[in-house]
Order: sequence, then C-alpha cells, then structure tokens
Amino acid sequence: MSWTQQLGLKWPILQAPMAGAQGVAMAAAVSNAGGLGAIPSALLSSEELDEALREFRRATSGASPAPVNVNFFTHVNPPEDSAAQARWRKALAPYYAEFDVEPPTTAGAGRNPFDAVSCKVLERHRPEVVSFHFGLPEAALLERVKAWGALVLSSATTVEEAVWLEAHGADVIIAQGLEAGGHRGMFLTQDITTQVGTLALLPQVVDAVSVPVIAAGGICNPRAVAAALALGASAVQCGTAFLCCPESLISDLHREKLTSEQAQHTALTNLHTGRPSRGIMNRLMRELGPMSALPPAFPQAGGALAALRSAAEAIGSTDFTPLWSGQDASGCRRVPAAEQLRWLAEAL
Amino acid sequence: MSWTQQLGLKWPILQAPMAGAQGVAMAAAVSNAGGLGAIPSALLSSEELDEALREFRRATSGASPAPVNVNFFTHVNPPEDSAAQARWRKALAPYYAEFDVEPPTTAGAGRNPFDAVSCKVLERHRPEVVSFHFGLPEAALLERVKAWGALVLSSATTVEEAVWLEAHGADVIIAQGLEAGGHRGMFLTQDITTQVGTLALLPQVVDAVSVPVIAAGGICNPRAVAAALALGASAVQCGTAFLCCPESLISDLHREKLTSEQAQHTALTNLHTGRPSRGIMNRLMRELGPMSALPPAFPQAGGALAALRSAAEAIGSTDFTPLWSGQDASGCRRVPAAEQLRWLAEAL
Repeated sequence: MSWTQQLGLKWPILQAPMAGAQGVAMAAAVSNAGGLGAIPSALLSSEELDEALREFRRATSGASPAPVNVNFFTHVNPPEDSAAQARWRKALAPYYAEFDVEPPTTAGAGRNPFDAVSCKVLERHRPEVVSFHFGLPEAALLERVKAWGALVLSSATTVEEAVWLEAHGADVIIAQGLEAGGHRGMFLTQDITTQVGTLALLPQVVDAVSVPVIAAGGICNPRAVAAALALGASAVQCGTAFLCCPESLISDLHREKLTSEQAQHTALTNLHTGRPSRGIMNRLMRELGPMSALPPAFPQAGGALAALRSAAEAIGSTDFTPLWSGQDASGCRRVPAAEQLRWLAEAL
Repeated sequence: MSWTQQLGLKWPILQAPMAGAQGVAMAAAVSNAGGLGAIPSALLSSEELDEALREFRRATSGASPAPVNVNFFTHVNPPEDSAAQARWRKALAPYYAEFDVEPPTTAGAGRNPFDAVSCKVLERHRPEVVSFHFGLPEAALLERVKAWGALVLSSATTVEEAVWLEAHGADVIIAQGLEAGGHRGMFLTQDITTQVGTLALLPQVVDAVSVPVIAAGGICNPRAVAAALALGASAVQCGTAFLCCPESLISDLHREKLTSEQAQHTALTNLHTGRPSRGIMNRLMRELGPMSALPPAFPQAGGALAALRSAAEAIGSTDFTPLWSGQDASGCRRVPAAEQLRWLAEAL
C-alpha cells in the first residue's frame, strides 16, 4: 500500500500550499474530494493556525475524515536591517513619487517560520502531513512532529538537496522543478542557475533517494499528472492549477492575468519577498530586473511595496503585485477545486 | 501514418544535431538503427558539408536507405566589432597572464548560417529533413528547401515562437525546454527569463499549433521519452544522451564531467559563443557569471577563448571549455549510439 493510499487519498494529488492565495476552504474542498489539501501557515499567527485547523476538521468531519497537510517555512528571520531598507526604499522612490504614496517607515509584516509555538498548536490537532519549505526545522522540533505519526515532507530543487533532506529525516521528498510558481524551496544555495526543470530533476531525484518522491512544477493538466507519475513520482503537487478556483483568495486582477497570454512569461524574482519566487512578469520586475541586489533579505522586502501595490491595484494595475504562477497556467479553470481535482486525475 | 513512420523511422526519436560534438559517424549509426540521425552544419564549410552528406549516404545505403536531418543555424553574422573584442580580451587578460598565452589578434572561427551556397549543396543530396536553429531562413531559401520535399523543422522555446514558426512554414516544431544542452533556439528575444521547462512548454505548444511537435530538453532516459510522448509530442529529440557514445567527438575531459556529479549543475551561458547555451559550470562561468555583458555578439565570443581553452586542456583542466550538457546527463552511457537509441526506446 502506497503512502497516499495509507492516507486515504483517492488520487495521489496534493494541492500545493500557497500562503496568501488560499486557506481552509480550498484545503477542505480538495481533501474532501480525495486529494490532499494544504493549509499554508507562513502568514498565520499561532491563534489563526489553531483556528484554521479547527475549521478544517469541522469541514471534513464526514463519514471518512479527510487528512490535511500543514505547511511551514523554516527560514530564520534576520534582524531588521535599516541600511538595507533605506537602500530598497531609495530604489523605489520614483514609484512612491509617481503613485503619491508615503514610503513606509517599518519593514512591515514578514513570514513566520516554524517554531515551538506552532508545534504546540499542531500537537493539539495532529495533522496527518506536515510539510516544510526551505529545508527542515531543527532536529528536536522535527522529532516532536514525528511523535504523533505525521508524515514529513520537504521540497528539494536539486539532487543535492534531496539527498540532504532524506538524510535529515524527510519521509517524502517533493522534487520541485523550476517551472513551479511561488517560492523556490531551495535552501543549500541561493544561486538560481542550480534550478532544474521537472522533467530533468524528477528522474534524478528518484534515483538518488530511497524515500517516495512527489513531482511539482509545471503540472497543470491531466496529461502532465500522468506523465509525472510515469516518470517515477509517487504523487504530484499542483498549485497554479487551483489558483482560479472560487476557493482561491487571489484578486480578480491576478485571475485575469493567469488566464491571459501574459501568463506565458513568468520569471523567478526576489523583488517581492527577498527570496526567488516565480510570478508573471510585472512592471517592477521588468524595470528593476527580476533578480536584483536591491531588496533586503527575505522576508523583509515586501513591506516597502505594500502601499505601492495597493495604490496601483486601486486603479486596476498589477505593476507591483506578485502574480504568483508556475510556467504553465493554461490549465487554470474557474471551477470548484473539487472539480479541478477530478479533472487533473482524469488520465489516471 | 505519422510523419516519423513516413520517414521510415522505427522509433520517433531524433538525435539532436550537436555541432563540434558529432558528425556523420553518429548520424549514420542512429539512422541505421531506426532513429533519425543529424548532421550539424554550423562549423562546416560547404565542401565539408557536401562530403559529409556523401559519406552519410554511403554509410546508410543498406537494404532500406536511412533518412537524415541536416541542421543549420540561421543567424546573421554581425560585422567584426573591434571595440567589443578589445573589451572581451581585456576581461580575459588575467587569464591570458595566468596561462601565459598570447591574446588572439582576430575574432577566430565563427559559425556559418544557412545560405544559398549551403542550399545548393543540399539540392544535390536532397536530405529528407532539414532543421534550423534561431528561427528560419528567408522565404526564398526556405522554398528551395521545400522544393525537393524536405520536411522543415525548427526550434521554439516559447509558445510565441512556436506560433511564429508555424506561420512562417515550419512543418514540425521542436519544443525546446530550458533543460536542453547547447544553444537555445530562442530567436524572438534574448531574455532568458522567457525560457520554459519542457514539462510546461510542451503541452502549451501542442495546444497552440496544428503541426506535429517534437519534445526536446532533459529527455535522457526511457521513461522521459515515454513521458514526452504521453504529453502530446509526436517525437522526441535527445542530445546529451548520445554525448558519451563512442561516435561522439567530445574530449575525454568532457566525457568525465558528464558522468560526474558536476553534471548536476549546468547553466545557460553566453560566454562561450555570445548566445545563451547550456553547459556544465566551469571556472569561467563561475568567475565572470554565466550570463554576462562582456562577450561580443554571437558567434564572435569563442575566438578569444580558443588559446586559453587549449592551454588549460593541455594540463587536464576544463576551466575554459564549453562542457555542453542538458540538465539531465544521468543517462549518458558509454555504449554505441545504436545501443543507446534502443535503450531510449525501451519503454515505447
């Protein structure tokens, strides 16, 4: 029996955790329909996480309770760097002037890494799957997660990272090809030339580790799902494919871009958060270059953009909006997540 | 009957043309074994091309004569730019000093684009397939190629390029995912953020054009071949997979790198020729950055490196050698090309 069958999944399809773009509604819809839904925690306080898990359990308490994947980032928040913030605001000064907004005075909301407090919340709800991005938490915390029997997932973007994750306790490895939208899970290097397409990464990771491998990145239609499984993946993880579902929290502007030809040109950019993540090209990326030395360290880049983003969006512009997307958005359909899941599973 | 069956291929597998890395021996071995071998012409004079085609026909004149794919670049050679050459040599000056070599005084050998002279050679031999990289030749030349019934192939690296190629007369389009080794076929832009992984590019190209599509990039084992066909490709093109065959002309140093862990880290670089092409990271790429404003326009970057490359290789170093490779070299086996072809076809 495979691990996805043990979890009770009908199909080996995971909905990728997408902080800011979805919450419990999508996770529950996918899990109830036979996939594995995910709750992204990076933007949640521990109280919000607790409430999200309570809500998920309520929403999936049918005849056969559905499993959940709770996702965390494992970065270390750097100290505030006022020099870096000043440099960043200076680079953005022409935009502040153009949109007539006040430069912010603080770094703004960041991203929360997994810690003892979040672990305590998890211990109350015992999620079946816990996944990490940017490596794994420290050993003591990881042990606590494993103590209630949770399956531990983490993303590898290179063969080297896959081998590292297996050695450090990941039960299943997500091979994240460079087609993937949002943050790259890369953690042994920040050199984006190391990033590999899914078709090339997946077979090499499958050969390099003995744990099961999930394919992620560019999987946005039934044929890609079937192809990834044929390449040796034991499951697939799809994110972009769910972004236009009604359960998604993204703006109408973002939805429109995803279903336009502009979605054919994405890039890895560190402008929006400080770490490389993939989104549809916007004006900021075009004018500063998508990978830049200007933004401060993750996750402190976004604060300086918040007011600009709001001002631009208010007039219908996504010039400063992170338009997260993988390299194939052609399967984005405006149908309920459960229906999208069944469509993705069509060729299985 | 599919176009590959009409050509008499046993399997829908093309050996990618790799200028400098292979010639008639590999092309004939692959075609005789039931794939489609390729003769790359970019580094050949018209006399050498004529001789190569004569040789190919001799080597494949068995019971059922085998087809051939002759490949050309379609760039326009820029005028010599002595300022750019001076800038480039200045950037390389520390290396000239370190290896005690004289900076070259000319730009050195370039690459030859398809022209009326090469077309005349082709008209004598009437190759079954003619493929182009960097777009298509001018309409009048393309018409001459089609006049003897040749099938015309060209590479698209984006949906936009695929649509352009179909509109301008390509009979079959190669969807070249960014995993591919060697030169990117990109021609509508030189912005490498536009480049898409095979798994994401292929289904989008298949949907966008009505001509058959060949998958290329990161296809280096039997499962990847089968997966690409399942994704809607009518054939696959493999290059890296053939680089360690005895018919390959690459150096022992290059072979060793391909079968080492270092092959896991390739990058697109314009340092070796002036255009983005993928190779295993070497010292030059690490120290100057793989994509750089320093080298002169394609194809005039290589001349300044030739003496450095020779001096380094003489002491067993690939510091300045273009180590062409796709993002998956794990299927490089030191077996005859015919055997490698049969292996790649194993899952069909």
